[in-house]
Amino acid sequence: MTRIGVVGGGQLARMMVPASIDIGIELRIFSETLNSAAKVGATYVGDYTDERQLVEFGKDVDVLTFDHEHVPLAHLQRVKDVGTAVCPSPEALALTQNKIKMRQKLAELVIPQPRWAVVGDHTNADRAIADVGGFPCVAKKPIGGYDGKGVRVIDSLEECADWVVEGEVLLEELVPFTRELSQLSARRLSGQWSAWPVVETRQEGGVCSEVIAGAVAIDDSVSQNARDIAERIAHAVDVVGVLAVELFETPDGQILVNELAMRPHNSGHVLTELSVTSQFEQHLRAVADLPLGSTDFIAPFGVMANVFGEVSLTAQSLAWESFPEAKIHSYQKAPRPGRKAGHVVVVGSNLDTVLGQARGARDIVQGSG
Amino acid sequence: MTRIGVVGGGQLARMMVPASIDIGIELRIFSETLNSAAKVGATYVGDYTDERQLVEFGKDVDVLTFDHEHVPLAHLQRVKDVGTAVCPSPEALALTQNKIKMRQKLAELVIPQPRWAVVGDHTNADRAIADVGGFPCVAKKPIGGYDGKGVRVIDSLEECADWVVEGEVLLEELVPFTRELSQLSARRLSGQWSAWPVVETRQEGGVCSEVIAGAVAIDDSVSQNARDIAERIAHAVDVVGVLAVELFETPDGQILVNELAMRPHNSGHVLTELSVTSQFEQHLRAVADLPLGSTDFIAPFGVMANVFGEVSLTAQSLAWESFPEAKIHSYQKAPRPGRKAGHVVVVGSNLDTVLGQARGARDIVQGSG
Repeated sequence: MTRIGVVGGGQLARMMVPASIDIGIELRIFSETLNSAAKVGATYVGDYTDERQLVEFGKDVDVLTFDHEHVPLAHLQRVKDVGTAVCPSPEALALTQNKIKMRQKLAELVIPQPRWAVVGDHTNADRAIADVGGFPCVAKKPIGGYDGKGVRVIDSLEECADWVVEGEVLLEELVPFTRELSQLSARRLSGQWSAWPVVETRQEGGVCSEVIAGAVAIDDSVSQNARDIAERIAHAVDVVGVLAVELFETPDGQILVNELAMRPHNSGHVLTELSVTSQFEQHLRAVADLPLGSTDFIAPFGVMANVFGEVSLTAQSLAWESFPEAKIHSYQKAPRPGRKAGHVVVVGSNLDTVLGQARGARDIVQGSG
Repeated sequence: MTRIGVVGGGQLARMMVPASIDIGIELRIFSETLNSAAKVGATYVGDYTDERQLVEFGKDVDVLTFDHEHVPLAHLQRVKDVGTAVCPSPEALALTQNKIKMRQKLAELVIPQPRWAVVGDHTNADRAIADVGGFPCVAKKPIGGYDGKGVRVIDSLEECADWVVEGEVLLEELVPFTRELSQLSARRLSGQWSAWPVVETRQEGGVCSEVIAGAVAIDDSVSQNARDIAERIAHAVDVVGVLAVELFETPDGQILVNELAMRPHNSGHVLTELSVTSQFEQHLRAVADLPLGSTDFIAPFGVMANVFGEVSLTAQSLAWESFPEAKIHSYQKAPRPGRKAGHVVVVGSNLDTVLGQARGARDIVQGSG
């Protein structure tokens, strides 16, 4: 298996391209627009909601994988039917498309998660509210939310009434977490599973802003617990490719699963510089059923800071003048306020230094330095 | 300056592609064949000895640089004339095209080098032989040699008589070196210069087989000397881009310049994993006149081992089974005995371990493990 097709032309597909070049695997990208972030690779423009186009694209590759989780599952089943592997499988992907299905599956697997309930036409709203510990709680649209979109902290059901009229809404306990973590791992088609050390993620407005990785103050028991949870999910759900498990750490040292993604994930960008194997290379190896690479960290610490809005070469240049150690990734996307346009990674042996450098470079690139 | 054109479609151009994607610079490659190693990028097929084609290609980019040093200098002058920067300049490139010119320039700069002389129709052969310390000595064709080709150790001039009839031949003292080193550095268009720590190179049959980098036993004075030599050459010759200075280390701790290259170089491949900034990213930043990146090493040691002949995904897979820490680069070139087809890099904190892993993976990829 050497030809990998990726559905989606965003920055995740873009960053699979260097990994594919390094190891010598052919990558083809099915992108919605000609001028996508992934245009640096071999892109084919098409509509992923069009079954015929997707099947045609699938015929020319050995395995189909994803930059996002929005492809209709029925279409993927058709791609499988014509003989192309789909990784992760439609069954696994279903859990990332629908947060209610994800909660149900995690409950079935007895994986620790926030208390949750569903509200909709035929549910008992009072019972649901009681199940999540009352207000305030978190309301989530089960389908299509990302980066804080489709998520609200509510003090009454009226605050999500517009969603309820559209269909079921997921309610979740508002977890009093001390910290958010992300456990990245990957599972190969034939079953091998390998995890990177758990990383800390920091969000602003529901969007990941920074990732801190390395020998940060995470208890061994928490780290081991995070690994175990990821491994159980990966095998039980038959995940193939990278699996990101976003976690809440609670004051009493418990961890609860917040979200799942079955593809390279923003919280794993730091691994490109910090780990022997990047999440992008690992994802390609996993879906091509090649042995997984070492997940060891090369340096003691790494920090990733997202850049929103725009990354210009002029701003990059200014940032590099002050921070020559900053690795500045530009996604070459059209500028838009709040849009993830790139990221900065710095690795090193002193966390305060690394954090200061990453933030300093980020601020300059973002035009706020 | 954001559009960089690269003449040549070999593995060096290929490896500039991931660097260009990371930092978001547009790269266009002028390649001799459609199915080149650099086909992973935006390639334009053409003949670099055809001035018209080269000028047309040059018009569409802001700066022209190289994967090899064989482009006729007059053509490059024409590219400059139509307003495209050429980095390195034709004047600098001339020294890497002709080893006699290189020796003359280094002599003029009083840079330590092996004793050398020229033999040809109008030279005094006895005097030349005496100048290099007699036989055995090294004979080199001044133009076109690489990887041991165009180089002979001779015991009499008759052994290079076939070259002398074609033109001048460079004779060099057979230096009784203890070790070969390579000093990689880069110089930005506007003058900033930055060096990586000097690395050790090991050759087999005149071809680089391994590179050892990190805190190896190189005296501080030797390291400083290597840096100083590279810096003097870079500024004096107005090098723009990566400069590789290959050096002989002699038993008394002197270093002598063996060869120069003004582009990313095989001896610098280890930097992709070992240094904050790879030679490919640094080359692009240098020719685009962007600030140079940090040349610090992230890990204590790194070893690069070349793979000759062929790299297949099957062999890669076998190597990864035993050596998950091995970064295996495949150039996707048509298999040919003795041809550089890829390389392996391992980084870590114990040199013996790293060396063993790199060689172990290399042997398996090469089918000799």
